[in-house]
Amino acid sequence: MEQKISKPARERLIRLARLLEQLEKSGKQTVSSAEIQSRTGWTSFTIRRDISMLGVRCANAAGYNVALLKKTIDSVLSLGAAEKRCCIVGLGRLGEALAGFAGFNNSSFVIAAGFDSSTNRTETLRAPFPLYSTSKMEKIIADEKIEYAILAVPESAAEQMALRLAACGIKGIVNYTAAILHLPETTAVENLSVMDALQNLSCKSLN
Amino acid sequence: MEQKISKPARERLIRLARLLEQLEKSGKQTVSSAEIQSRTGWTSFTIRRDISMLGVRCANAAGYNVALLKKTIDSVLSLGAAEKRCCIVGLGRLGEALAGFAGFNNSSFVIAAGFDSSTNRTETLRAPFPLYSTSKMEKIIADEKIEYAILAVPESAAEQMALRLAACGIKGIVNYTAAILHLPETTAVENLSVMDALQNLSCKSLN
Repeated sequence: MEQKISKPARERLIRLARLLEQLEKSGKQTVSSAEIQSRTGWTSFTIRRDISMLGVRCANAAGYNVALLKKTIDSVLSLGAAEKRCCIVGLGRLGEALAGFAGFNNSSFVIAAGFDSSTNRTETLRAPFPLYSTSKMEKIIADEKIEYAILAVPESAAEQMALRLAACGIKGIVNYTAAILHLPETTAVENLSVMDALQNLSCKSLN
Repeated sequence: MEQKISKPARERLIRLARLLEQLEKSGKQTVSSAEIQSRTGWTSFTIRRDISMLGVRCANAAGYNVALLKKTIDSVLSLGAAEKRCCIVGLGRLGEALAGFAGFNNSSFVIAAGFDSSTNRTETLRAPFPLYSTSKMEKIIADEKIEYAILAVPESAAEQMALRLAACGIKGIVNYTAAILHLPETTAVENLSVMDALQNLSCKSLN
C-alpha cells in the first residue's frame, strides 16, 4: 500500500526516474542505492526510504532492477502516462528559447500552442506549434484541451495573465517571472525565477 | 536571537522581501499578516512564524512596518548586501534570453561574463557584459571574482561544465538543464528545469 509521498520525496523520485532512464539507455540492468547516492548526492537512507514509499519491491541482492523501478515510479507518480497538453504564454526571448527546447520531444508534455500579446510576434516567430494572440487564449485552451501553462511574460503582466489562465481551468503554471502569484487552489504554481534561485544560493553559501 | 531558518521559510522570506519592495514603491507603510496572506496564499500563522524567526520585532497594532521588515529580511538573509558576481555559461537561445533579463539591473547580482564553447557565438552575440570562450572560463572566473554561475548549456554538456565550475570555486550554480548534478558540498545547486516543474505540477494536480 503506497503512502502519501511528500513534496521533497516526489521531487527526488522525479529526478531519480530521469537518472534511471539514462542508466537504462546505457544498458545498465541493476543499480544499488550506493550508486544512486554517488550520482545524486542523496544519502542511501533517503533513497531507500523514498523508494519504499512506492509500495513495490524492486530490489534483489544485486540492487534495484532499473527498468522495473523506473516503471514503478512512472506508474505511482503517473509520469509516463497520457499526453499532457501545455501552452507557452509570452513569446519574448525566453518564450522563444522554451519553444525550441528539445526536451519536450520525448516527453508526455506536448506544447500545443503559444500566445503573445503582440500579433506581430505571433506572425513572425517560427515554432513547431501554432501561435496565437493572447486575446484568443481562453478559446484555444478550451478547444485544444490544454491543462498546463508556461508563463514567460514580463513581470508586470504576470499576475493578470495567471488569473486568466486559472479562470479557464489551467491545472498548473510554471512561473518563469519573479511575480508572486496567488491563485485559486485548483491551479498549482511552480516558481522558476532566476532571481529567487540566485538569492537562495547566496543564502545557502552563508550557512 | 535568530533561529536557524529552514529552506522553505527562507524561500518564503525571499519572496516576501520582493512583495515588501513592491508595497514600499506603491507608498504603503504598514502591512498585516492577513494582507500578506491574501497576496501570497501562505497562512497568517506561517507568515507570523517565518517573521518571528528573524528575531526582530517589526510589528505594532497596525501591522508590520513595511520598510523595517524589508530591511530586517535583507539583513538577516544578506539579500541587499554586497555585489555578487555571476556568469552565464552557455549562450544558446536560453542563455541569450537570460543575458537580456532586465531583473538583474536593480539587484545585487551582477553578470560579469558569459561563456560559450563556440567562439563564433561569443563573437557575434551582443550582451551588456563581455563574452568569452569556455576555454578561458577558469581564468576569467578567478580574475573577475565570479562566485555564482547560471548554467544554460545542452544537457549532455552540463555535468562536465558544472564540475569545472565547482573546481574553480564557484559557490552556487543555477541549473537550467535537466541534468542531475552531483557536486562537492562547497558548490550549492538550485535546479530550474522546466521538465521537472511540469512533472511536479502534474503530480500535484493528481492529489
